[in-house]
Amino acid sequence: MLIVLIAFILFFVKKIMTETKETARIEAFSDGVFAIAITLLILEIKVPQHAETPAVLWNELWRLWPSYFSFVFSFGTILVTWVNHHLLFNHIQKKSNAFIYANGFLLLTVSFIPFPTALLAEYITAESHSSAISFFCGYSVIANIAWILLFHTVRNPVNLLTHEGEKLVAHRFDRVKYFGFSIYTATFILSFWFPYTALIINVSLWLVWTGTSLAEKD
Amino acid sequence: MLIVLIAFILFFVKKIMTETKETARIEAFSDGVFAIAITLLILEIKVPQHAETPAVLWNELWRLWPSYFSFVFSFGTILVTWVNHHLLFNHIQKKSNAFIYANGFLLLTVSFIPFPTALLAEYITAESHSSAISFFCGYSVIANIAWILLFHTVRNPVNLLTHEGEKLVAHRFDRVKYFGFSIYTATFILSFWFPYTALIINVSLWLVWTGTSLAEKD
Amino acid sequence: MLIVLIAFILFFVKKIMTETKETARIEAFSDGVFAIAITLLILEIKVPQHAETPAVLWNELWRLWPSYFSFVFSFGTILVTWVNHHLLFNHIQKKSNAFIYANGFLLLTVSFIPFPTALLAEYITAESHSSAISFFCGYSVIANIAWILLFHTVRNPVNLLTHEGEKLVAHRFDRVKYFGFSIYTATFILSFWFPYTALIINVSLWLVWTGTSLAEKD
Amino acid sequence: MLIVLIAFILFFVKKIMTETKETARIEAFSDGVFAIAITLLILEIKVPQHAETPAVLWNELWRLWPSYFSFVFSFGTILVTWVNHHLLFNHIQKKSNAFIYANGFLLLTVSFIPFPTALLAEYITAESHSSAISFFCGYSVIANIAWILLFHTVRNPVNLLTHEGEKLVAHRFDRVKYFGFSIYTATFILSFWFPYTALIINVSLWLVWTGTSLAEKD
Repeated sequence: MLIVLIAFILFFVKKIMTETKETARIEAFSDGVFAIAITLLILEIKVPQHAETPAVLWNELWRLWPSYFSFVFSFGTILVTWVNHHLLFNHIQKKSNAFIYANGFLLLTVSFIPFPTALLAEYITAESHSSAISFFCGYSVIANIAWILLFHTVRNPVNLLTHEGEKLVAHRFDRVKYFGFSIYTATFILSFWFPYTALIINVSLWLVWTGTSLAEKD
Repeated sequence: MLIVLIAFILFFVKKIMTETKETARIEAFSDGVFAIAITLLILEIKVPQHAETPAVLWNELWRLWPSYFSFVFSFGTILVTWVNHHLLFNHIQKKSNAFIYANGFLLLTVSFIPFPTALLAEYITAESHSSAISFFCGYSVIANIAWILLFHTVRNPVNLLTHEGEKLVAHRFDRVKYFGFSIYTATFILSFWFPYTALIINVSLWLVWTGTSLAEKD
Repeated sequence: MLIVLIAFILFFVKKIMTETKETARIEAFSDGVFAIAITLLILEIKVPQHAETPAVLWNELWRLWPSYFSFVFSFGTILVTWVNHHLLFNHIQKKSNAFIYANGFLLLTVSFIPFPTALLAEYITAESHSSAISFFCGYSVIANIAWILLFHTVRNPVNLLTHEGEKLVAHRFDRVKYFGFSIYTATFILSFWFPYTALIINVSLWLVWTGTSLAEKD
Repeated sequence: MLIVLIAFILFFVKKIMTETKETARIEAFSDGVFAIAITLLILEIKVPQHAETPAVLWNELWRLWPSYFSFVFSFGTILVTWVNHHLLFNHIQKKSNAFIYANGFLLLTVSFIPFPTALLAEYITAESHSSAISFFCGYSVIANIAWILLFHTVRNPVNLLTHEGEKLVAHRFDRVKYFGFSIYTATFILSFWFPYTALIINVSLWLVWTGTSLAEKD
């Protein structure tokens, strides 16, 4: 009977570990992409060259403010995305092929972030700022679509959620799908006429997603 | 008897964890390389400089399309490679020296991907596109060989597969070894005369490997 | 009874693993950021170009000494930060939203390190060294604040510490909050008049934090 | 009695997991650094610019051979270092402060690899190759010292090895300390008079360390 008991326990321990491992590798891979994307941002800030006096160097460092802003903003965006990603994975107990590829698409939008924000940093004070802002707002629409796809594949074709996760996810899905999508699309359209206004709205939404991540008791 | 029971259970729990750890570190290291390679791709897309009017900036952003295409394509390639790598590791329960080095060679081809795709992005619309495409197709042959070596070392000199993995791997190995190798070699030769045709065939094979990863129930 | 026993054990094993997982993902993500930040540093050292004779190349390699120093110093800084981060996490058994965001802010300062140190390497021997040093000292104040916030959120609004962690953390918190903050602020102010002196004090503090990490038995 | 039994088992399961975690985070951090260093190497290979005809582009791609060689060689070096690092960690069950910092120094030499190899790729066919080769050989001596320190701290001040690890490590330590150190130092001195000969010897040692990693049954 001892042997049977041990066999049973070990069978289940192995099962728990395998199940955990199922989603764990996707999570680890995603975390890797988040961590790298967030750390690569610093490469966009270039050390000023040939600043010969202290005053000139201070001036040059000061003029880099769009780069600092862009660094902090991108960092924050990726961090909030990571926290929300993390909260979603807490409620997922299986995986499906559709989910793996939807997650891959989300990671693509995450790793793309350095480009639109560097564009913004380069042109925010220039004549051509409107194109840079529209590009940025257009990117936000696509990132929002990636989230919609991810939430969709969490329940279709296979439901991957734990029982307690069902309600939480449904609530957040609605916010992303209806509120998020309509605002980002409207902002994108607005950006062609009122670029700075559009940018301020876009950036403010950041607070909403941070709020989402804080609201959940988890 | 209580002590004996506990000792037994702990012995086996430790054994399960050690066994898992054996391949886990190789998997973690590989995942790191995949995650970094996939995230570094964005560094190839450079923010356009000195675009003074919005129209000029839109135009510059539009002219970057080979870079966007190259980014999405490389991202997709690495993602599919990662998914297939992941599926293979699900069926592996041990490791061997040959396997570690074959896996290392595969990672070398993965981390090399940014170079041929950046080359493609730079020259796809230029006079010299044929050399860039041939280089790319030649690279694909080598990446295919890395997969053949990996599948080979999974069973030689030591069989590392779980029982249920045997059949699945055999099936996929044949596809890579016969179908994959002959098509990639043919495409490489073709690329010297009909570069664009060769590139289209090469890119289409991507769908086959995505299909492979989706087909498996896992 | 056998079934009940197994059910109990598995329930608790799963509980232990879930609890471990709670902080484990934050740790893994942080480790990723530390590992990437520490490895990206090498990109700041550029291979000298057009050195035509061996003597010229030796000379060029020699003139890179501020880059080598900056590389080793940044590497050491991130390593010590990682060790201290690691020691803190050993005593944390839960997470809170405030803690996640405070940790994110700390990671922001870690990933920013390459910029002030590259600035230092570029200008340490130049006329304009004082601005570069003040910027660096100013950065140190902000990094110190990030540590203060992290230590604060470890106990507020929720106490996340294990019982044995309480005393250790209190001791280290005081050192960072009173000793660290006052010295870094004083050094920042000093740097406007005596830049090199300020830099030497700043760098020496490095030894204090290394000592902190060594002192703890853990 | 049931409760006592469960309590005992859980206590030990938690203990096993904590012990594993002790060295696991150092391993994970090290793996991160290895994975990033190995993947960053591709950034050293630059896409040729302005190659207007296919023949010119082929020629340009061909002339990059020192970069390809340097890429494959660095990749192989880091891979072999990782395998040996991995083998050592299999026999370590505790950690000490000295060990953490010795491991940090080894990681510093690993993350530095891109610089001496890029230098080699730039100057191997130039007049000034001798300086580049001496620099490279000098670097190898320092990397060897990092291994000696790591092996030393494995047993001093605290013995961190498992019982079965003792003999294996002793054997490998001797090889690194006596054979490795004397050859690398001799090669460094030789490089000032016969650079190419020194480089060939240096590169050949690579086979020895690969052999070391293969020899062990593990």
